[in-house]
Amino acid sequence: MSEYAVGIDLGGTNLRVAAFGRDGTILEKLSVPTNIEAGREALMESIAAGTEKVTRTHGAGKLVGVGIGVPGFILLEKGIVTHSPNLAGLENFPMRDDLARRIGRRVVLENDANAAALGEKWMGAGRQVTDLVLLTLGTGVGGGIISGGKILHGFVGMAGELGHITVEPHGGALCGCGNYGCLEAQASATAVVRMAHAAIQAGRSEALARHADDMTSARVYEVAVAGDSEARSIFERMGRYLGLGLADLINTFNFPLYLLGGGALAAWDLFAPPMLDEVRRRSFTFRRTDTRIEKAELGDLAGLYGAAYVVLTGH
Amino acid sequence: MSEYAVGIDLGGTNLRVAAFGRDGTILEKLSVPTNIEAGREALMESIAAGTEKVTRTHGAGKLVGVGIGVPGFILLEKGIVTHSPNLAGLENFPMRDDLARRIGRRVVLENDANAAALGEKWMGAGRQVTDLVLLTLGTGVGGGIISGGKILHGFVGMAGELGHITVEPHGGALCGCGNYGCLEAQASATAVVRMAHAAIQAGRSEALARHADDMTSARVYEVAVAGDSEARSIFERMGRYLGLGLADLINTFNFPLYLLGGGALAAWDLFAPPMLDEVRRRSFTFRRTDTRIEKAELGDLAGLYGAAYVVLTGH
Repeated sequence: MSEYAVGIDLGGTNLRVAAFGRDGTILEKLSVPTNIEAGREALMESIAAGTEKVTRTHGAGKLVGVGIGVPGFILLEKGIVTHSPNLAGLENFPMRDDLARRIGRRVVLENDANAAALGEKWMGAGRQVTDLVLLTLGTGVGGGIISGGKILHGFVGMAGELGHITVEPHGGALCGCGNYGCLEAQASATAVVRMAHAAIQAGRSEALARHADDMTSARVYEVAVAGDSEARSIFERMGRYLGLGLADLINTFNFPLYLLGGGALAAWDLFAPPMLDEVRRRSFTFRRTDTRIEKAELGDLAGLYGAAYVVLTGH
Repeated sequence: MSEYAVGIDLGGTNLRVAAFGRDGTILEKLSVPTNIEAGREALMESIAAGTEKVTRTHGAGKLVGVGIGVPGFILLEKGIVTHSPNLAGLENFPMRDDLARRIGRRVVLENDANAAALGEKWMGAGRQVTDLVLLTLGTGVGGGIISGGKILHGFVGMAGELGHITVEPHGGALCGCGNYGCLEAQASATAVVRMAHAAIQAGRSEALARHADDMTSARVYEVAVAGDSEARSIFERMGRYLGLGLADLINTFNFPLYLLGGGALAAWDLFAPPMLDEVRRRSFTFRRTDTRIEKAELGDLAGLYGAAYVVLTGH
């Protein structure tokens, strides 16, 4: 048996654990509810148990270590999560060292979007490059920057908070970070739902109003595809804001590849045309070079791949 | 005699050439008018002659190479300037190889703002860090990113075009790049002068109107310091746009240090307070970490230092 690593994606809803070979094959995988209500001790136990389960038949001796992707801000040196709205009980808890003690292996803590970006670089849409940026469009907008094949961390580990680039300086929506007009507040799945409710309030769409009680970005998409002009304009706006953010990133990094992932990617055919129009308009670097803006490939497994790769490459 | 390198700063107005020791001491320095009207051949000859002059007494054998900082977009691999409004005759000309042939030494071509950022890292305000961003506030707004001690180039050499981040998506001023509302169009010395003329046109400032025929950002600053509220509000706006751009960069990089340089730095006491207010508002990373925003130290020598350092470190 050859060396392998475990990648963990600790989401607010699901805890996913997988063992990966050095060649990127998944040896074993499991998913259980995160069950944050049971408390921190129970959660740490279930992470340790999950690790034990996926490694049982592959030889504990060959396990290089465990990488965990966590939604929130990471203090890299300390192995601590400092701000994680969906996993509040873990804030300022020395998670990395606690897990290392439980499983007797090296543990690396990483921001989930950073891990996803690295996963795409390893086995996804970024296999051919060493430099890329990933934006994940979900409840929020996450960001990960891969430079020279490695995650760009910054000096405490908070680099890549690309959802908090300001794309609407005037009258933008309030973001969880305290700023107004962040990319996350203007172009996430949450922003799509908020815009849909605003359209209903203003009496601008009967089709959207029929879903007022169970609105999701997927629902807005369906209504848009069925021809509702108000729903379509929501994705138009989302695309323009994404384009503005991407243009800034392209002008800043001049990387060859920018990937979009996350649940809201399903609306690509509606938001991508205005997004690309805005990027062309606002980035001469895009106009002058073969810069690619593409869909991520690994879906919600990207973070698992990346978390394992962090450990395999010793970053 | 020990090894040394030559740094060249090829500006639209002045051509500056200096020989630097490995410890950062300036061995010899000269400055001549660029005289672009005399044509490309004359310019290349004067660069070669300048190099010869500053190296004459230091031993040609110890010269490691020559670095040139040029305003414009660089195709790094080809050693070509592709877009340089102030040095139009050099566009698409294989400048690096031409000079290397003339002087028989290794030549490296670099964007002038990138070179300035590296210079500040070597011998200026960034000596203590390996990661920093420099914005130079002059006729335009230049940008340079130092990551892990090296210039971040991107895949063709166009990274760090930070003057072209969009900070005013609605009704911003037209930028030379074709976009509206770029940082360069809203917060450069040129933008300050444009805002002053607009204030005069609208009849909002008699004090500014007295300088209508010879307006410069320095003049606007004097009028502001003398108490003119309209002139003060121009630097207030400049500061807010700078703050928005800096907040985006801080959220993106989480670097420890962001430097401001260039001629418009003289107005620091007027634009810095609104700038810092905007950064605090728009970047939780700034609020939560010891991120520093400071003045660059090397003034218009930064590019010379950086151009020489590129060669000394073999980047």
